[in-house]
Amino acid sequence: MQQNDTSINAVDDRLFSPDQAQRAIARGLYARVRNLPLICPHGHVNPLMLADEGYNWGTPVDVLIIPDHYIFRLLYSQGISLAALGIPRRGGDRTYAGIEADHRKIWRTACDHWYLFRGTPTGIWLREELRDVFGIALKISSATADAIYDMLQEKLDSPDFRPRRLFDRFKIEVLATTDAATDTLEHHQAIRVSGWGGRVIPTFRPDAVVNIDTEGWRANIDRLSAVSDIYVRNYASFIQALEQRRGFFKAQGATATDHAAQIAYTERLDETEAAALFDRALSGTATRDDAQRFTGHMLIEMARMSTEDGLVMQLHIGSHRDHNPEIFSLYGRDMGADIPITSEFTRNLKPLLDRFGNTPRLTLVLFNLDETTYSRELAPLAGHYPALRLGPPWWFFDSINGMRRYFDSVVETAGIYNLAGFNDDTRAFPSIPARHDLWRRVSADWLAGLIVQGIIDEEDADAMIIDLAYTLAKQTYHLGDSA
Amino acid sequence: MQQNDTSINAVDDRLFSPDQAQRAIARGLYARVRNLPLICPHGHVNPLMLADEGYNWGTPVDVLIIPDHYIFRLLYSQGISLAALGIPRRGGDRTYAGIEADHRKIWRTACDHWYLFRGTPTGIWLREELRDVFGIALKISSATADAIYDMLQEKLDSPDFRPRRLFDRFKIEVLATTDAATDTLEHHQAIRVSGWGGRVIPTFRPDAVVNIDTEGWRANIDRLSAVSDIYVRNYASFIQALEQRRGFFKAQGATATDHAAQIAYTERLDETEAAALFDRALSGTATRDDAQRFTGHMLIEMARMSTEDGLVMQLHIGSHRDHNPEIFSLYGRDMGADIPITSEFTRNLKPLLDRFGNTPRLTLVLFNLDETTYSRELAPLAGHYPALRLGPPWWFFDSINGMRRYFDSVVETAGIYNLAGFNDDTRAFPSIPARHDLWRRVSADWLAGLIVQGIIDEEDADAMIIDLAYTLAKQTYHLGDSA
Amino acid sequence: MQQNDTSINAVDDRLFSPDQAQRAIARGLYARVRNLPLICPHGHVNPLMLADEGYNWGTPVDVLIIPDHYIFRLLYSQGISLAALGIPRRGGDRTYAGIEADHRKIWRTACDHWYLFRGTPTGIWLREELRDVFGIALKISSATADAIYDMLQEKLDSPDFRPRRLFDRFKIEVLATTDAATDTLEHHQAIRVSGWGGRVIPTFRPDAVVNIDTEGWRANIDRLSAVSDIYVRNYASFIQALEQRRGFFKAQGATATDHAAQIAYTERLDETEAAALFDRALSGTATRDDAQRFTGHMLIEMARMSTEDGLVMQLHIGSHRDHNPEIFSLYGRDMGADIPITSEFTRNLKPLLDRFGNTPRLTLVLFNLDETTYSRELAPLAGHYPALRLGPPWWFFDSINGMRRYFDSVVETAGIYNLAGFNDDTRAFPSIPARHDLWRRVSADWLAGLIVQGIIDEEDADAMIIDLAYTLAKQTYHLGDSA
Repeated sequence: MQQNDTSINAVDDRLFSPDQAQRAIARGLYARVRNLPLICPHGHVNPLMLADEGYNWGTPVDVLIIPDHYIFRLLYSQGISLAALGIPRRGGDRTYAGIEADHRKIWRTACDHWYLFRGTPTGIWLREELRDVFGIALKISSATADAIYDMLQEKLDSPDFRPRRLFDRFKIEVLATTDAATDTLEHHQAIRVSGWGGRVIPTFRPDAVVNIDTEGWRANIDRLSAVSDIYVRNYASFIQALEQRRGFFKAQGATATDHAAQIAYTERLDETEAAALFDRALSGTATRDDAQRFTGHMLIEMARMSTEDGLVMQLHIGSHRDHNPEIFSLYGRDMGADIPITSEFTRNLKPLLDRFGNTPRLTLVLFNLDETTYSRELAPLAGHYPALRLGPPWWFFDSINGMRRYFDSVVETAGIYNLAGFNDDTRAFPSIPARHDLWRRVSADWLAGLIVQGIIDEEDADAMIIDLAYTLAKQTYHLGDSA
Repeated sequence: MQQNDTSINAVDDRLFSPDQAQRAIARGLYARVRNLPLICPHGHVNPLMLADEGYNWGTPVDVLIIPDHYIFRLLYSQGISLAALGIPRRGGDRTYAGIEADHRKIWRTACDHWYLFRGTPTGIWLREELRDVFGIALKISSATADAIYDMLQEKLDSPDFRPRRLFDRFKIEVLATTDAATDTLEHHQAIRVSGWGGRVIPTFRPDAVVNIDTEGWRANIDRLSAVSDIYVRNYASFIQALEQRRGFFKAQGATATDHAAQIAYTERLDETEAAALFDRALSGTATRDDAQRFTGHMLIEMARMSTEDGLVMQLHIGSHRDHNPEIFSLYGRDMGADIPITSEFTRNLKPLLDRFGNTPRLTLVLFNLDETTYSRELAPLAGHYPALRLGPPWWFFDSINGMRRYFDSVVETAGIYNLAGFNDDTRAFPSIPARHDLWRRVSADWLAGLIVQGIIDEEDADAMIIDLAYTLAKQTYHLGDSA
Repeated sequence: MQQNDTSINAVDDRLFSPDQAQRAIARGLYARVRNLPLICPHGHVNPLMLADEGYNWGTPVDVLIIPDHYIFRLLYSQGISLAALGIPRRGGDRTYAGIEADHRKIWRTACDHWYLFRGTPTGIWLREELRDVFGIALKISSATADAIYDMLQEKLDSPDFRPRRLFDRFKIEVLATTDAATDTLEHHQAIRVSGWGGRVIPTFRPDAVVNIDTEGWRANIDRLSAVSDIYVRNYASFIQALEQRRGFFKAQGATATDHAAQIAYTERLDETEAAALFDRALSGTATRDDAQRFTGHMLIEMARMSTEDGLVMQLHIGSHRDHNPEIFSLYGRDMGADIPITSEFTRNLKPLLDRFGNTPRLTLVLFNLDETTYSRELAPLAGHYPALRLGPPWWFFDSINGMRRYFDSVVETAGIYNLAGFNDDTRAFPSIPARHDLWRRVSADWLAGLIVQGIIDEEDADAMIIDLAYTLAKQTYHLGDSA
């Protein structure tokens, strides 16, 4: 049963077409970019890791299982409880009765069920991460569980595997985190004054103060007042406080904002209506409809601010968060129970585009979990409006087939120059190289396919592979200048 | 024009990738499963065929054309009337003026137009069925029509081709039929007492008593009272009667129920509301909205019963039945005029999943005719909720491309262990081996593709091909124990 | 940087699978059809081009850039203004301040940004058009811009490149234009009396008089009265006038009508209601809802007329026209700002199909911009109703991947004989051969794929390639008889 995957290692053609002609071309294109620095313009790495020079990873389970809902989601679907995987309750409580505390045992449980990940990108990422980051070529299984655990623990305890060392080893040129509008960014400041050269920049994510139906919204507004030094007592001061925070983030190196909404609905309210609605929110009398309209209005307002301060605007659409009420009440958010819904952009984004779609001062990057919109709405929109760029396949679609379908669906209509390149969108720091590598391989193979079919020539492909792997992300997010 | 397909016969690599490396691997994987017994957990074979030891097939047209809406649907689309194909009117009347009675002539008509089936799974199934079941290697055409008809008739008249003989020859390990909740299952009982060893089990399908807008619902309720010996006079006795029937089906070997609805809407009514609604249905005053809410409620109620009696719950969503009123009024149901509609699961199934999604005591197998839900909703749901499994591609999607799109869309997110394996879902008994063979070939080729791309290794594929071809269906439907 | 694409020229296998076995078969199939005459049953070529024997093309920019929204759309998306591309303002004004008048400069701008078209069908079409129509094998780039411009201008000025000469050289068997119901078709008449043998026929497109919310509808009705000699004063005379125009178009060679609607909604109004609604439209008091219902009613009425006069009915669904108000107000329609929306056919078309779906006297060809409907709705509908045919992939989907997805999605359910073959749908006359060639290559390669997988045999493929490339379009549109 134990078996290392040397045979796969030996062939460095993984994820390429079996066709020999295409494979040879893909190999050549991939070689051009496999060692390029990594541009990471969107993700969820905790900046504390990089602020704390002596950061302690904890156990392999602390690094690879507990924070990764891609992994425990699938184990849970087959009847393994989150408690058995050591997942802490809401608020971080790990001592609740029944939560497994023996991390070696948790690791064995995961390895015993690792067959569940056959054919999944999560399985590929972890395999490549073990091999390329931690130098472990064993295939995960019940038989290898203990050996892998011990090897991992040894590496995690070694100074060579501290986050800053990995950051440098990974050749990360820039890493953007995602931070609440009310965050004071002390970790980012600590990194900048530390003398370490890594470029780690924040991203302004105001959802918790902009979406008035957020749990704890009123407290978030108070915190916004506090950190901005602007007393948010009405719509006008709310806008001022947001502008203050954007300025602060920009001063700390931010080049982008990020916004999430279940649907892409936008609507321009006049100032009187916006003010009245905000007052209702402050007094706790806003309706569900108010919340949707205010979010739709604020997306346009955020686009307006972006045209003024130049921050790239990202919009993530289509996730029904916290679908499972039992899991949510016990464990809280981001527990693998977010489920996509259908999306609509043509009508929903029109009010925003009517105002700012023709303005090159705005760059709006769209992310989405409904692949049907790729060819039907997103590519036609991005292939027309100067303000739009399409983000790479997101979340469930950050996968081999997800990328192939994306390329096949959007490029014929939008070209590649209306795309935003790649981002890894991960909180799993050690998985970053594996994720970029997957994108680079799939991109190279896709371009090789275009060559062997006579759609593009090698001169085109040589330029396109570098654009896809590196340049598009750097340009889209205005990352050309170092901080 | 006449030409047999020996050339295709000679190459046993059909449905495999043209790539030689992938093809060689696919061939090896397919060889591991091609002779495994068939697990048939869902279908529409008439149990009478297997209860009657001397069952008479009738003519080739009785076997292959008249009962198969996949076939006469496409002939009809090109202007061939159902009457010309011998399709009986509503109620089975075959003597209506204009209905062709000469079955050889009908067969010739079908063969004259067989080119319509080029590139369709229906065409492949019949080709393989003729060759592998009936030993006829001729290609269907006007020129071969008579010869094929004669050869078929000879076989059908032979004792070697009686259904029980075919059942054994096909190596069917278990065959589930689909039966109304009010069915008395006498054919199943006859099979069990006959001494013949074939395992033929019923499936509990209560749509006609649960969906209060069914034509003839009131009479169905009376029949339910009669067969259950529980007088259904209100909601409480209705539930009791259903539980009685489930118990009866289970005693007759059933391991599953089956439910169909146009949409996946679920809603939990409180007992008072459910009772009042049922009273309105009994008195003939229920509205269309009542009907939808009651179906939505009963799906949750059926899930509740499944958690208690352990019957696997199947749900078929998305068909607009009897779309063509002229065909429906003359010929009735299942006449090739059912057309899919869009489906939604994330919001619609939530009330059911809120109650039973985390319960491993429930297995809910979802079938669907809207492929866009595969990657967007179904795979994320099945990749999280312990209660969910995804059924194989259904109906129009039980095809080569349908299976490939299914694998490519669901496995990256849900893995293969949240799938329910294959079922043939057919009333065309002699086509069963061809349908399973198609699934097994496409599965083998898909796995071979993963190997040549370095996504999985051979050890993984060896396990996965057996799981896909055999084990997943057997486990999902609790068919491990013989009756 | 300068590089001609001889290498690609040399390989005449472009758009074929890299697999050598499939490629060899594709080459053979393509060879059977590459020189067949072109059937062009739907498009937007200006008939004036062919009426005027001495038609002057103008500059390369007049021919290739200004009229082609596929091209300027993508340039615009990357910040190049329409003015910089010489696009005239609404009404054709080219002298507005800022509109570039130097066509060589415009051409250079386009060539400087030609990399945007890498991997797009627009890029392929123009490459092949330059090479095969104009004999220019240079790759478009900044370095080759002037040379290509000069070579193009020389050809355009030559009598050998006048439209009629190209028509003959392209081997166009028949070309249908698209013409308003109120058009007097003088160019078509001029062509017919000219003695030139080319078959150029009109298509009856009544949207501007049928859709009561059309800008300028009232004036269109006056024009309808004038050209039909029937005073349209109520619904009855409106219907009479439309029937008169259909008769006139048919007399001028038309074999088809064409209708566009944002959604496929159909509804049968009774005569009283239709008349009252039409009166409201005449008096300017119709509502938005009136407009949708009247369009839905008139689609059924047009189907009724088709069953009587035999004109094939085309229906184009799913485009949100003029999405960008700034572009629309300055430049008008067809400026690359039409964006698709979701479509629904199963329920929307039912009222029309209830009346005429079973009638072989109707041929209704459906076009659509929502690919999800292919397998879910369109193929099941076309695989049942005798009246339905599916049009080829339209607009954004008239592409390599668009065609592949179309074949893979519709044929398994509908076969190829419920398809309408190909049409180029273009106003860019010199691009016609490149567009048909792309379809023929993709068709050949798709069929070759079926052969190498053992799905069809060579006998089938030999017939199917000719049907797809030529026969299906000719038969569907009743183009068998020369005018």
